[in-house]
Amino acid sequence: MSTEKTLIQRLNAADADFPAALQKLVAWEGVSDAAVNQTVQNIIADVRRRGDAAVIEYTNKFDRTEFTDMSAMTLERADLEAAWGRLSTTLQQALEIAVARVREFHQRQCQTDWQYTDASGTVLGQRVTPVDRVGVYVPGGSAPLASSVVMTAVTAKVAGVPEVIMAHPTPDGDMQDFVLAAAYLSGVDRVITMGGAQAIAALAYGTETIPGVDKIVGPGNIYVATAKRYVFGQVGIDMIAGPSEILVVCDGKTDPDWIAMDLFSQAEHDPDAQAILVSPDADFLDQVAASIDRQLPTLERAAIARQSLTERGALILVRDLEQAMDVVNQVAPEHLELSVEDPEQYLPRIRHAGAIFLGRYTSEALGDYVAGPNHVLPTSGTARFSSPLGVYDFQKKTSIIQCTADSASELGRAAGPLARGEQLTAHARSAELRIKD
Amino acid sequence: MSTEKTLIQRLNAADADFPAALQKLVAWEGVSDAAVNQTVQNIIADVRRRGDAAVIEYTNKFDRTEFTDMSAMTLERADLEAAWGRLSTTLQQALEIAVARVREFHQRQCQTDWQYTDASGTVLGQRVTPVDRVGVYVPGGSAPLASSVVMTAVTAKVAGVPEVIMAHPTPDGDMQDFVLAAAYLSGVDRVITMGGAQAIAALAYGTETIPGVDKIVGPGNIYVATAKRYVFGQVGIDMIAGPSEILVVCDGKTDPDWIAMDLFSQAEHDPDAQAILVSPDADFLDQVAASIDRQLPTLERAAIARQSLTERGALILVRDLEQAMDVVNQVAPEHLELSVEDPEQYLPRIRHAGAIFLGRYTSEALGDYVAGPNHVLPTSGTARFSSPLGVYDFQKKTSIIQCTADSASELGRAAGPLARGEQLTAHARSAELRIKD
Repeated sequence: MSTEKTLIQRLNAADADFPAALQKLVAWEGVSDAAVNQTVQNIIADVRRRGDAAVIEYTNKFDRTEFTDMSAMTLERADLEAAWGRLSTTLQQALEIAVARVREFHQRQCQTDWQYTDASGTVLGQRVTPVDRVGVYVPGGSAPLASSVVMTAVTAKVAGVPEVIMAHPTPDGDMQDFVLAAAYLSGVDRVITMGGAQAIAALAYGTETIPGVDKIVGPGNIYVATAKRYVFGQVGIDMIAGPSEILVVCDGKTDPDWIAMDLFSQAEHDPDAQAILVSPDADFLDQVAASIDRQLPTLERAAIARQSLTERGALILVRDLEQAMDVVNQVAPEHLELSVEDPEQYLPRIRHAGAIFLGRYTSEALGDYVAGPNHVLPTSGTARFSSPLGVYDFQKKTSIIQCTADSASELGRAAGPLARGEQLTAHARSAELRIKD
Repeated sequence: MSTEKTLIQRLNAADADFPAALQKLVAWEGVSDAAVNQTVQNIIADVRRRGDAAVIEYTNKFDRTEFTDMSAMTLERADLEAAWGRLSTTLQQALEIAVARVREFHQRQCQTDWQYTDASGTVLGQRVTPVDRVGVYVPGGSAPLASSVVMTAVTAKVAGVPEVIMAHPTPDGDMQDFVLAAAYLSGVDRVITMGGAQAIAALAYGTETIPGVDKIVGPGNIYVATAKRYVFGQVGIDMIAGPSEILVVCDGKTDPDWIAMDLFSQAEHDPDAQAILVSPDADFLDQVAASIDRQLPTLERAAIARQSLTERGALILVRDLEQAMDVVNQVAPEHLELSVEDPEQYLPRIRHAGAIFLGRYTSEALGDYVAGPNHVLPTSGTARFSSPLGVYDFQKKTSIIQCTADSASELGRAAGPLARGEQLTAHARSAELRIKD
């Protein structure tokens, strides 16, 4: 292994302290400090009390705007269509491809009702229905996250959600046609130019003009994430996202410049983003390290990528690809690239990952925009227990139970003793009333 | 309508103030006050810092026990089997029926992997895998909730979860064979006799002897619920449950004593539990009101049921069963009994409910124990956006994307402009590196 000093740190899985070092590397706790918690609680309480007036005030304060009423903050379908009309043909066509592909993939996630009649004659089943109204949060600011609109709104619409309301702050009044055009094409019903905890509160509890939604999804800053945690229960929320991460496993036979750029594509997101490469080939790690140092200055977002790679990136040497899979399972990465020969053979070994990109050609960036699967993925190891955003997040299930006179009698004979065992005798008597003599 | 004063309040959907009255009736906010929040945060921090020692201390303090080490608080399979052996044959057989029926229903929820190759040659798919380790919380105290064990643990095991750890406090050292036997039969791998926020913290973060789990499910008091909210993100959690509720819709042709007992079976849970009857038949409401007053004193848990029915119960007169469905959708009840003729005809009108019990014979109590569907259901209107506990809660999905050289080139041509539109140029370059000339 080269001893030359490079930007990104190196770890060796053979080292005795590697398990601890890996744990430290990937540790992330998105703690909201007491000040953030208090601010968010105050904003939520104020929006619940004063409704629109509070939303307008906070928006003008935090986004440096001068709105006087909610109608000026509301963009209807016609406004979104106008933004679409102003978009370049190139971006229109690319958005059309993205929307079509995301729709096609997610349609396969649709679940159907089922029911069956069991041996007792009881009909049992499960119905699937969409939620009535969804709030999609799309951050504002310099980078117009059109793809976040597509991934959240198209998925909700495929699930059959009748009404999708998008909250999207416009700091300094800066409106991005790209985002609004994506909202148009994705079927968003209305955009409200609000952000932060005030937007989450307005969506969760409703105001005079904003109808309360049933579920809120989409990324946001620490105020948005904290507010989502507080309104959880009043509405459903998606996972509270941490910084984005990628773990690339490479056998050493992919062009090092490709791999370096794949790492950059994650690192450029955010100084807290994490890019990790795992390989059994020490020379290859040297080559990627050199490529990183060489290519970094050519990036538009070089400063962000540099900070991310320096503070949270790593090149990890493993004994073999089998050991690489152990690292994968410990990290439970949001994005996993298997840049190896015959990547399918490793799938059975992978227990946790948000999305897996197989083979040298499948760059993670394709998944961010056009591949079809959702780019809203579980971060910070939460792939251990959670899933990509999907149609299932916008639908809910209802159990169906229908007894006959005979089956109610039969089941009552088992339910009675169990209820009495739990000392819930009204339960027992309710079941026993239907027992035939 | 009778003007005689009865225990349970009456509402009429024809009244101008009915919508507001209904909203007030069902409003529930499970607020954790500042003291509870602070206590829970302190306990979590302490368990994270001191591990087993803290768990033992809090357990001895809150449950009035005298444990000196974790091994005394740990029940292995052999201990559970011994409890099973001490159970009466009646309860053994009833538990066997419950476990078999719950298993059979939930097996139908298992999802399979799928993948397809699209027109571009890209392979896209979704893998489903179980979480590694689940924590099941089962409250202690006087009522041994064996059915909660069955509903949570059997479902996790059907999902393929290798390890299920049950946290179950034993106040005053009181151990219930019924609960432990249910744990045995449901496949629980280990029971730890701890409860409260300390149990949630130990399960979420792990201690020297307790392995950290990936998901925590099950009901609990305000400390448990608050702790679950705090550890959400570190682990997955199920919905934070409010008090249990039932809404019965009756056409007036079911025995009023049956309906009264069905309402009791909910009301006896908890003074905060809610039982509501909706009918277009005013005389029938009178009969049920009279039956409630007559039967109430015969209940073992009369005091609890009386408080529940007085403070949160209601009999609602509607114009017709169509209007009853509007009430159903506004309430989004946890349990819905359709005690009417030809109940299936109303299913398409119902948008939100946790579980629907169709027909006069299907008492809700059957669903609590033996019908098969889960009894862990969304409460307090959260059926608007959430589902019964199910196999899907113990599995997670991973997206699969595999491009060919050609499809990576084709998709890269669309991803590039979108990434540049978002000013994420490393993303664009990563995709564009795979574009063929």
